[in-house]
Amino acid sequence: MAQLRLALAQADFTVGDLPANSEKVVALTHEAAAKGAHLVVFPEMALTGYPIEDLALRASFVAASRNAVEGLAVRLADEGLGDLTVIVGYLGQHDDQRAELGRPKGAPHNSAAVLHGGRVVTSYAKHHLPNYGVFDEFRYFVPGDTMQVVRVHGIDIALCICEDLWRDGPVTTARSANAGLLVVINGSPYERNKDDVRLELCAKGAAEAGCPLAYVNLVGGQDELVFDGDSIVVSPQGDVLARAPQFDETLLLADLALEAADPQASVAPESDYSGLRVEGTVVSREPVPAYDAMESTVAERLDDSAEIYQALVVGLRDYVRKNGFRSVLMGLSGGIDSSLTAVVACEAIGAENVYGVSNPSDYSSQHSKDDAAELARRTGLNFEAVPIAPIVEQFHKAVSLDGIAAENLQARIRAVIWMGLSNQHGHLVLACGNKSELAVGYSTIYGDAVGGFAPLKDLLKTQVWELARWRNAEAVGRGETPPIPQGVIDKPPSAELSPGQLDSDTLPDYGLLDDVLDDYIEHDRGSAELVQDGFDRELVERVLRMVDRAEYKRRQYPPGPKISIRNFGRDRRLPVTNAWREIAEG
Amino acid sequence: MAQLRLALAQADFTVGDLPANSEKVVALTHEAAAKGAHLVVFPEMALTGYPIEDLALRASFVAASRNAVEGLAVRLADEGLGDLTVIVGYLGQHDDQRAELGRPKGAPHNSAAVLHGGRVVTSYAKHHLPNYGVFDEFRYFVPGDTMQVVRVHGIDIALCICEDLWRDGPVTTARSANAGLLVVINGSPYERNKDDVRLELCAKGAAEAGCPLAYVNLVGGQDELVFDGDSIVVSPQGDVLARAPQFDETLLLADLALEAADPQASVAPESDYSGLRVEGTVVSREPVPAYDAMESTVAERLDDSAEIYQALVVGLRDYVRKNGFRSVLMGLSGGIDSSLTAVVACEAIGAENVYGVSNPSDYSSQHSKDDAAELARRTGLNFEAVPIAPIVEQFHKAVSLDGIAAENLQARIRAVIWMGLSNQHGHLVLACGNKSELAVGYSTIYGDAVGGFAPLKDLLKTQVWELARWRNAEAVGRGETPPIPQGVIDKPPSAELSPGQLDSDTLPDYGLLDDVLDDYIEHDRGSAELVQDGFDRELVERVLRMVDRAEYKRRQYPPGPKISIRNFGRDRRLPVTNAWREIAEG
Repeated sequence: MAQLRLALAQADFTVGDLPANSEKVVALTHEAAAKGAHLVVFPEMALTGYPIEDLALRASFVAASRNAVEGLAVRLADEGLGDLTVIVGYLGQHDDQRAELGRPKGAPHNSAAVLHGGRVVTSYAKHHLPNYGVFDEFRYFVPGDTMQVVRVHGIDIALCICEDLWRDGPVTTARSANAGLLVVINGSPYERNKDDVRLELCAKGAAEAGCPLAYVNLVGGQDELVFDGDSIVVSPQGDVLARAPQFDETLLLADLALEAADPQASVAPESDYSGLRVEGTVVSREPVPAYDAMESTVAERLDDSAEIYQALVVGLRDYVRKNGFRSVLMGLSGGIDSSLTAVVACEAIGAENVYGVSNPSDYSSQHSKDDAAELARRTGLNFEAVPIAPIVEQFHKAVSLDGIAAENLQARIRAVIWMGLSNQHGHLVLACGNKSELAVGYSTIYGDAVGGFAPLKDLLKTQVWELARWRNAEAVGRGETPPIPQGVIDKPPSAELSPGQLDSDTLPDYGLLDDVLDDYIEHDRGSAELVQDGFDRELVERVLRMVDRAEYKRRQYPPGPKISIRNFGRDRRLPVTNAWREIAEG
Repeated sequence: MAQLRLALAQADFTVGDLPANSEKVVALTHEAAAKGAHLVVFPEMALTGYPIEDLALRASFVAASRNAVEGLAVRLADEGLGDLTVIVGYLGQHDDQRAELGRPKGAPHNSAAVLHGGRVVTSYAKHHLPNYGVFDEFRYFVPGDTMQVVRVHGIDIALCICEDLWRDGPVTTARSANAGLLVVINGSPYERNKDDVRLELCAKGAAEAGCPLAYVNLVGGQDELVFDGDSIVVSPQGDVLARAPQFDETLLLADLALEAADPQASVAPESDYSGLRVEGTVVSREPVPAYDAMESTVAERLDDSAEIYQALVVGLRDYVRKNGFRSVLMGLSGGIDSSLTAVVACEAIGAENVYGVSNPSDYSSQHSKDDAAELARRTGLNFEAVPIAPIVEQFHKAVSLDGIAAENLQARIRAVIWMGLSNQHGHLVLACGNKSELAVGYSTIYGDAVGGFAPLKDLLKTQVWELARWRNAEAVGRGETPPIPQGVIDKPPSAELSPGQLDSDTLPDYGLLDDVLDDYIEHDRGSAELVQDGFDRELVERVLRMVDRAEYKRRQYPPGPKISIRNFGRDRRLPVTNAWREIAEG
């Protein structure tokens, strides 16, 4: 067996920021070197950020990425890090310079570069491209057809990228190539997942490859996606050798004892396994001199609520930071949605950078006004009340509106005030809507729906309550004041746009509504199946009709962090013009 | 040679409306039968509408589509149309019932059914799936691997679907199978194209197939896409035998003299050509008794401006109609964008259903107020003026705003009024912005950007002027009053949100700006290339920076008809969080 100290750089990169991302790679490689690592691995598309969407199709960006990876290799060597082997994801390019329908010349690859001694020693192109859910990789990349095996300190290391681990071919090819270690670099976004699917997958991969598997993932937010890290090293027997804490930037170190390659044999002697070619490259033959192995971190996974909360915090924090904002502003109604949004915002960027505006109207209850102020007091955010009644009155003098038009008017006046303050002071406005509302269209477009980011967008109303209770309990557990006043959690939800209005006047009970939404949206079950599942036929038809008709509102809603297995946005893409209506028979 | 009267049903179908689409197929088949047709061909996905996006992934919808096509076959026979052969596009399903990663069991096909004698005789699954530009067919469909050749009245007819014609394989396979006619059903959206690419492609296909080619396309609008029809029958020598007028629903008839199949030989005797299997099915062997051929329509293509104008009209008309609206409302500022939008709306749904609202502020010029009223007078649309000064004042009492915040305030107050009237009266609000504004972010989000549809979204400002002039000239040519007051066209553009404001205070000259935008957006050229093209370096950097920073506004902008080769929306998909900045060197 041969020793190797592996460093998995679970880090947060910014889409398009090649200079800053290169800097981060250099800094983390210095840190890894200081800690005695021999191999440092960065996640999928670390150099470019991920996902880059149509930037992959712009020739200038492809060229910049290729230049950046070459420059990085030189830079690492210049800074005395040339002896380390560094694997980093970037936007590569196929050698074939023929243009193809819908594709520029030199089609892009989702690639992993192996850097050593001041140069790019070899590069692996992702073989299996995901094109479902939030992924559109057939739009952007051409698949690679060659597995790369690199011999580092006498150990043969096979490379995979993300989806390669999920499908047939690459992993078994690694075994055929007698790899001593399988390295998988990932851009695997968070989604709620109570079972430990990722570990299971890694353990299965290690067993199939017949060698330890090292899985490194991005952390941080990028528009709708939040990457949760959770990097893992697992033995072929399924033992977790190291595991990084979720959502945190960290350099995960693991001292491994690996099967050394036969020094007489060439790397990957056979050249073709089940359709995937194998290429071998020798980086270094000399084994690492024996050293005392240290213990690795094996972090516990967060529980379900903590995980969701952390995804919201990281998603918001990165959206704010990466888009150059310093502060956020939201309407504080005294309701549960704006209260939880405010608490998440305070956690993400500090209460001193959070601005809450209360806009009471004639229909606002005293308890709502009090609850908003009390939330502000408990969290320490900046609070201001701007009553809207005189403005409402002025609009009514100008145009004759009643019913829903008059209700929406109030919501839109509030939005005009928030956007005015945003333009005046540079705050990012947060939309506070939840997934249940957005699903059934129970929100005012250009009213409460305004904002640049919507932290709760992918949480059903019942999950909002659950998370609020969890957050308060956490505070109690830490001996702190619960941030959300109990009344906010306990009171029946209301938009307070007309006298005595309650959500339950218009919508089914949220418990029931969310069950239907979960089946229809997240599991794409049709109405007949929902009725089979035991839901009332009329309820199903009513809810599904509301969902189908609200598509136009969702199209104009701001992005928010994906939490569920199917979010509104990248995951679920339906036409606005759509006459299909699920009708339950029976 | 064998005779055949072919009917190409260039028609407008609605996404998701299986019953109405089936009705339309039946009605048009009756019409074709009455006109003596032997074969009636409907476009790609006619039965389901196109594109259906994630409806393709819903099992209930796939089942409904399959039932609808079976039901349609029975219905046609029941109505005495069973002797006709009908080819119709629908959502099919692969027989393989294994679930796959990211895909439900029984993966969807983009299919063409051949109906005859009360049943689905055979079905062809699209072989080449486009996954670029506005297309995402790898997300939705699995490719077919078998060409279908059907013998109808003794003539072997090969089937292709849209992209199959653009790529290698299917067309030459049709020749190998000795097809007497190649039928291509299409869902090919309009985009501006001065060269006659479609005809060129069809002629090339017919020459390669060695037989006449019949190309039938959808018409009508579906969210961002407008299908322009332009169905064509072309001989292998490249002669246009028939051509349908663009954008119109029409049954294009063509009397063809075709190579008959050898009656002794089986259909498609060889079973495998260049990776594509071939299956043959006999529908009918008896040749059509000799008859006198009639002359076919060969419509002229519209000129560039007429084509664009028609795309806007059809796109808007169908969005309104298919989403159940009866009227539209827009702000009329007296500017060129709202004026052209109003004229398009009047053409699309009748002036009596168009509501224009003028919202003068303290900064509105007298000529703008006059021009808005004059436009209303000339077109006959419903016109109302609602001054906003008292409301502006009331907001300023509530919050302290100046500069751009105060400018945006006015635009947002107008939007609140339009949305109030929309909610009160059921009008669809139209956003009047153009592509140049949307590109550089020169619009107020939740202000002039509000609306359910944006007719000019994909027209650069210079194209807006061009089209306005063209429309006025058309009116003069017909002896009518030009709808747009000349002053609207001639005056320098201004948002009129502050005293004496002109667009040119903030933006480069529109001629120059549009040239840069055309290069950067439609041709995806980087800054270095733009500078090479002769643009000033500072100008390029300034414009590109504005474009990159405005992505968040575009995400929340309503859909509008695609006109250019790369629209904002389905065609150009960039992250909001994106630190990549094109920097021109040199």
